[in-house]
Amino acid sequence: MTPESWLDQEQPRYVQELLDLIRIPSVSAKPENIPDVLRAAEWVAARVTAAGMENARVMPTAGHPVVYADWLHAGADKPTVMIYGHFDVQPAEPFDLWTSAPFEPEIRDGCIWGRGASDDKGGMMTPILAVEALMRTKGKLPVNVKFFFEGQEEIGSPDLPEFVAAEADLLKADMIFSADGLQWAPDQPQIVDALKGMVSLEVVVNGPRSDQHSGLHGGGIANPALALTQILASMRALDGLVTIDGFYDDVLPLSDEIRAQIARIPYDEADYLAETGAPAVWGEPGYITRERLWARPTLDVNGLTSGWQGAGSKTVLPAEARAKITCRLVAAQVPERVFDLIAAHVARHTPPGVTARVERNPGRADPFQMPAGHNAAAVAREVLAEVYGREPYRTRLGGSIPVLTTLLDVLGVHAVMFGFSHDDENLHAPDEFFRLAVYRKGQTAYVRLLEKLGAGG
Amino acid sequence: MTPESWLDQEQPRYVQELLDLIRIPSVSAKPENIPDVLRAAEWVAARVTAAGMENARVMPTAGHPVVYADWLHAGADKPTVMIYGHFDVQPAEPFDLWTSAPFEPEIRDGCIWGRGASDDKGGMMTPILAVEALMRTKGKLPVNVKFFFEGQEEIGSPDLPEFVAAEADLLKADMIFSADGLQWAPDQPQIVDALKGMVSLEVVVNGPRSDQHSGLHGGGIANPALALTQILASMRALDGLVTIDGFYDDVLPLSDEIRAQIARIPYDEADYLAETGAPAVWGEPGYITRERLWARPTLDVNGLTSGWQGAGSKTVLPAEARAKITCRLVAAQVPERVFDLIAAHVARHTPPGVTARVERNPGRADPFQMPAGHNAAAVAREVLAEVYGREPYRTRLGGSIPVLTTLLDVLGVHAVMFGFSHDDENLHAPDEFFRLAVYRKGQTAYVRLLEKLGAGG
Repeated sequence: MTPESWLDQEQPRYVQELLDLIRIPSVSAKPENIPDVLRAAEWVAARVTAAGMENARVMPTAGHPVVYADWLHAGADKPTVMIYGHFDVQPAEPFDLWTSAPFEPEIRDGCIWGRGASDDKGGMMTPILAVEALMRTKGKLPVNVKFFFEGQEEIGSPDLPEFVAAEADLLKADMIFSADGLQWAPDQPQIVDALKGMVSLEVVVNGPRSDQHSGLHGGGIANPALALTQILASMRALDGLVTIDGFYDDVLPLSDEIRAQIARIPYDEADYLAETGAPAVWGEPGYITRERLWARPTLDVNGLTSGWQGAGSKTVLPAEARAKITCRLVAAQVPERVFDLIAAHVARHTPPGVTARVERNPGRADPFQMPAGHNAAAVAREVLAEVYGREPYRTRLGGSIPVLTTLLDVLGVHAVMFGFSHDDENLHAPDEFFRLAVYRKGQTAYVRLLEKLGAGG
Repeated sequence: MTPESWLDQEQPRYVQELLDLIRIPSVSAKPENIPDVLRAAEWVAARVTAAGMENARVMPTAGHPVVYADWLHAGADKPTVMIYGHFDVQPAEPFDLWTSAPFEPEIRDGCIWGRGASDDKGGMMTPILAVEALMRTKGKLPVNVKFFFEGQEEIGSPDLPEFVAAEADLLKADMIFSADGLQWAPDQPQIVDALKGMVSLEVVVNGPRSDQHSGLHGGGIANPALALTQILASMRALDGLVTIDGFYDDVLPLSDEIRAQIARIPYDEADYLAETGAPAVWGEPGYITRERLWARPTLDVNGLTSGWQGAGSKTVLPAEARAKITCRLVAAQVPERVFDLIAAHVARHTPPGVTARVERNPGRADPFQMPAGHNAAAVAREVLAEVYGREPYRTRLGGSIPVLTTLLDVLGVHAVMFGFSHDDENLHAPDEFFRLAVYRKGQTAYVRLLEKLGAGG
């Protein structure tokens, strides 16, 4: 039996297994889900063992755990290939916007609907199933394989730098592929050349000791919620430019070559607006939308909290107001330096009558850029071209996968994105889904990737 | 037995009864407490009947109910006196800032601690107990009395204009006293000459159809949370001036007489800052703090809501951002006109890439101003001078009691504030309390007020 026939035969079971994994609400951001993230780790460790991997173990970190496993019997002349993925998911709120419950996945219209279906439980399963297909049909793998799956990607992998540094010998590999990644479209592959870095923080404004009656004290003392809006509004001009002093200082200019590469890829603004439902595009002047999305830094407010948020009106002058902010960074910005610039900006722009401070949230990522002519990327490109019947686009991503820069720093290896999600799949939003046909195609792609790497590229 | 001796003798029971009433969580702002507001109404109707009032009934409105009762046997030559109060309370969140649970009242340090102890359950009880003391010791009241207690003051009495208009005959009175009101200090009475009006609204900003991944879409489309901050920041200058076109157009200038009246009353800015815990005073330039608090209009943000508000970080670009806003108004501003000015301002200041709208919240109040030489106010002043042994200050209030303007419009009678709360009692905040000694003094004041009105003023 070929690996392909095996995968066809076992597909109904593989779909059910992905549903089982989605049912575990492994939300890394929420303290109440800590046991669920651990449960997901244990599920994954058992599943990779069933697939034929060895030495599978749930490894503790200072936060959520890691799952490691290996199979190292291909011989010393074969490369050792690490495959990365994550089994934690984003929070599912607001629940009422889901068509079916986020942790009670359903199959509809040829897709699996549920939190984590696409990001990254579906993606992480594809190399596991590829390994199983090779083991059951060939009795061995064509290369040495290490699985490195984590449970804190969605909160910025705060404990991974320490973990990877401590386990550098165990994790040593010749090349790294990330099963967390996007393809361009169900019929068009891509190779991702760069990802953005990230820094995450909160701006906290305080006024009176506790919430006050806005009738009795309004006009007498400053309003922290209003002061917060004044601080935040000072960070971006109405035309989209980030107005924090020094924010763009470390940004490498966008080369003509990269601009040309970006321009070669089809783009339809009407399609983009239809996909997001936004009324218009918006952002830093002087760059087209895709340049801003792929290759320019940005600053977004992820959340606002202050005062009364229930139904109707409560006439309070709030004691505190908070904003959650993330900046996406490009080469050669440094997260710590951008944090310092924002802290200085807040200090300079705090209006009278309140105090303000900036708190750093866990998680960081340096901008990530694949070197031209990278060998593993070339093999990935060949496999994608075969499986899809089309040359992959060379693209970039606005998102961040902090562990990739960590792996580069410690192991000296640039990871290649080899994932099969699509950006219409409501990643991080209600009604996340994953296409069954793509799930199947990703399994084939990993089988061929391992085979091609074993055949010497 | 005199009414005073009766009140002394019954005081332990009266304290227990106030505790019972506070235990009913009659939060008018929260749909889940609708049955509790009704339960409080029924408790009050039963209690006024026990005090000797007649025709007590819980009367429906389009929202929370009203309690009415009367005693009309003093004779046609005696005035008919309406006494107003409310049995609904503000929400108690955040619960974790209370020393004892808001709806499990406790007696500590000579005070009753619980939501509504001061605003206005304690205040509303004082005329009820005064009537009971007069009925039990004299067998009758010196004037005709109508009780008019409501259950929606804390949400701006949205259904009272319709109710009062429909029941104008039943509510007809020669004078009106409000048991919802403040005294200056435990040893210093006041007569309140004016209250501010109010308009309440929400600014809602929308961008993409649903929350988006801020890495994949940040920099491509506008961020509604950031846009909301830009809209709100445009409403007030950093120096405190409200910068909405036309906002001050209808404001009557502050006369030299009123400024002098305000200046006569002791004020210590350090005390004010210590009371609120605010780091500094702040507000419209050109006016001292107390002028701003008492006699100038203002705009406050009561709440902000957008995106992720849980622990840590969630990298969303939110679909929506909302701000709750109230403006406090002075003569001769009109709530509807101020709402229109704000709506026009938001339309003019909506940044590119988002849509924004303004929704009016229920509840409104015209600014309220007592005419000079008002007769009922003169009697109230005499009683307060007797009970406290000091001349009352002539003051103003930044808060609003919408029903007072409604009663003026329909019945043609200016209500006199005759309440005994103090503004250090954490009204609308955690750890609300009411002094036991003031509770007792308020009962005496209402006995003397009714007696003096019956004796011809």
